[in-house]
Amino acid sequence: MDPAEFRRHGHALVDWVADYMERVASLPVTPDVEPGDIAARLPLRPPEEPEPFEAILRDLDEIVMPGITHWQSPGWFAYFPANVSGPGILGELASAGLGVQGMLWATSPACTEIELRVVDWLVDLLGLPEHFKMAVGPGGGSIQVSASDSTHLMHVVARHRSAAPADRLVAYGSSQAHFSVQRGARVAGFGHVRKVATDERHALDPGALEAAIEADVADGLVPAIVTSAVGTTGTGAVDPIGAIGAIAEAHGLWHHVDAAWAGSAMVLPEQRVHQAGVERVDSYTFNPHKWLFTNFDCNVLWVADRAPLGAALSDTAAIMRNPASESGAVVDLRDWQLPLGRRFRALKLWWVLRSYGARGLRHHVGEHLRLAGELAERVSEHPRLEHAAPTSFALVNLRHADGDEATDRLAAAINASGHSHVTASTIDERSYIRVSIGQTWTTAEHVDRLWTTIEENA
Amino acid sequence: MDPAEFRRHGHALVDWVADYMERVASLPVTPDVEPGDIAARLPLRPPEEPEPFEAILRDLDEIVMPGITHWQSPGWFAYFPANVSGPGILGELASAGLGVQGMLWATSPACTEIELRVVDWLVDLLGLPEHFKMAVGPGGGSIQVSASDSTHLMHVVARHRSAAPADRLVAYGSSQAHFSVQRGARVAGFGHVRKVATDERHALDPGALEAAIEADVADGLVPAIVTSAVGTTGTGAVDPIGAIGAIAEAHGLWHHVDAAWAGSAMVLPEQRVHQAGVERVDSYTFNPHKWLFTNFDCNVLWVADRAPLGAALSDTAAIMRNPASESGAVVDLRDWQLPLGRRFRALKLWWVLRSYGARGLRHHVGEHLRLAGELAERVSEHPRLEHAAPTSFALVNLRHADGDEATDRLAAAINASGHSHVTASTIDERSYIRVSIGQTWTTAEHVDRLWTTIEENA
Repeated sequence: MDPAEFRRHGHALVDWVADYMERVASLPVTPDVEPGDIAARLPLRPPEEPEPFEAILRDLDEIVMPGITHWQSPGWFAYFPANVSGPGILGELASAGLGVQGMLWATSPACTEIELRVVDWLVDLLGLPEHFKMAVGPGGGSIQVSASDSTHLMHVVARHRSAAPADRLVAYGSSQAHFSVQRGARVAGFGHVRKVATDERHALDPGALEAAIEADVADGLVPAIVTSAVGTTGTGAVDPIGAIGAIAEAHGLWHHVDAAWAGSAMVLPEQRVHQAGVERVDSYTFNPHKWLFTNFDCNVLWVADRAPLGAALSDTAAIMRNPASESGAVVDLRDWQLPLGRRFRALKLWWVLRSYGARGLRHHVGEHLRLAGELAERVSEHPRLEHAAPTSFALVNLRHADGDEATDRLAAAINASGHSHVTASTIDERSYIRVSIGQTWTTAEHVDRLWTTIEENA
Repeated sequence: MDPAEFRRHGHALVDWVADYMERVASLPVTPDVEPGDIAARLPLRPPEEPEPFEAILRDLDEIVMPGITHWQSPGWFAYFPANVSGPGILGELASAGLGVQGMLWATSPACTEIELRVVDWLVDLLGLPEHFKMAVGPGGGSIQVSASDSTHLMHVVARHRSAAPADRLVAYGSSQAHFSVQRGARVAGFGHVRKVATDERHALDPGALEAAIEADVADGLVPAIVTSAVGTTGTGAVDPIGAIGAIAEAHGLWHHVDAAWAGSAMVLPEQRVHQAGVERVDSYTFNPHKWLFTNFDCNVLWVADRAPLGAALSDTAAIMRNPASESGAVVDLRDWQLPLGRRFRALKLWWVLRSYGARGLRHHVGEHLRLAGELAERVSEHPRLEHAAPTSFALVNLRHADGDEATDRLAAAINASGHSHVTASTIDERSYIRVSIGQTWTTAEHVDRLWTTIEENA
């Protein structure tokens, strides 16, 4: 495909994406396919001859679209959002066009320097400690693939700074911690993972954490890391990171904060009470690719001190040597992550932050919080509905008063509507419905439509 | 940015990328900036107010471009290629526009089913064993972020299937293995990494491997995994995977093949002699994002048996439960990788394979091999140049006959030309110049231009 053809097909595809943005609200959120339906439309063997791009674009409608779950529908209330936005999509396009590798400063200086500055901007935007800024130190932040990767990496750092054999190490998180805590610890080789008990709000109980640590120490094990969640996946619970931090310090644990989803809410100063104590944590991760309008993948990981991360990862091959790195005057981002290669993800994040501005981010996230608050009130006032857990940020957790079967039926009815999609899950062994508000284009109109369906089926 | 604005700015950006494709050959490959130059053009604090997209696009020229290393220049002979192509860039755009998460089959069936089929296609294209195909079994392949991630994951699997404590486990690779082998073993918690001696072609010496394993066993250690390189980063050396495989089998080691770069050459049947023995390896990874015209990130990892990978990673949270997964009729790709989230990377790979066709891939890779062969002959015939190592695939390793200083001067002169960029490195403690041919748009004209500069400065 030469540049002239790229121009022609690129314009056609931009129109396709713009059309998709215009019509996604009217598409059924989930596709009507059975396992194997999409695969059956694909040849078993790769094509021998080149195919015209027109045929490929046609198959975007004929093969791909029938199998798409529309995460970008404004009726997306399932899981958490995985938002795109115009500037985010275009930033990804520019990054793809430039095709640079950001493994070293020298392999594309703009890739590193823009990333470091934009990640420092997020420290301001989220009200995080100044010492998280690379320009201030001794900490720093970088873009990673996902919160799972960041959480795993922090377990590796905690293992590396401990002198004990991995099979004696213990990792802690609440029973409501994201599965990446368990997986991160497992992949990092930890011998033990403790799912610490939670209180009535599903937040980690510091007393239970302290007791678990003491029991493990008495058993000859080595507590190494605790992950606090600011906004659990299940119900949005907020672990008390101040109290957990004090315990972590007393026992020498690494304290990692997983604010993958709710970190975005911190653009609103009044929400920062939920991360009180963040000044003393060792690491903090959140996903602009969830609720901050920046296409996946774009996770940010900060460490309060960059030395232990460097020590856990660093080594240098001859082919990587270059004057800039050896001068010590630059940051090489391959020393901040497990993989070597990295694409120019800061571009889309920079474009989103500039396109929205801090004011725009506060407005949009604030609107989602307001809509969640209104929905929560409607649930409170409805005679057949209950809160399965307190509303947290923009996540409303509801169930039917008649029990699990009625709740499951209600969830199925909502999802059968086509216009709205929620996640049916369980908490404390009871069914509930998660309504996560936060897709880029969700407005009052879409929450009203969801509510009408809830009312009709409750 | 509403859909109409997206359409307008998207067209402008497509034109920008098309213009970039047209002019990249005429830009100096590396930027003329000092550390901090780009950062100095960025505000210290995030913008409070939204900025017009026109200003953002303008800064692509004014702030970003001065700090870009042009990996997409046809004069890119450094490291390995990290190729883009028209269909690859457009596939990334479409994926960004759809913004789906492919963690579960149910979260976007097309994302999983197209990935599995396209990765199966690559088994045919590269002449890999049929049992690597998900549709044939018991193995299967999936897209990962990078070869580093895949190699790390295989070390985790090897650790998990071993009963021994991690600090007694040993990982093996040659002294020329990519740094991801050492990092992967280190991050996975291995107590020991052996850099096995190589022969005169810099390929792993099976006798030295066997001796190292036996010495480690005698010391009470537990050999767990060996990584064979098909195409080392330094000189493109090819480890004898048949002989290494026999040793791995005899001693119960996991045998992983890292063909990150050279795997793409296997589209040519006559190159497959270099992976003789692949029928018996446990895992194999290669990067379509290097030399197969598919934007980073797009690494593929195959395992001959998917059970150990699943066992090392798998666990299920309530929020992930869904009828499709529980039926067992679908593959959930989050069980194939460390992170949970994943974007629709198969789209760009599918578009590249269809746009080029198998014939086109063979043609373009074959052209790069031919150009490398011609350059190697010119080096052989030149009185002041030597081969620092045998030419391997499309990697020519040369040095100046007058020694390290002359070689370093030659490398600096090439890189000062602006039109061509090579990597200066060392092998056996002597300087050499890696000329890696393989950028998407590199033709005879660009290699001729490089050769003229070499001749003028040698």
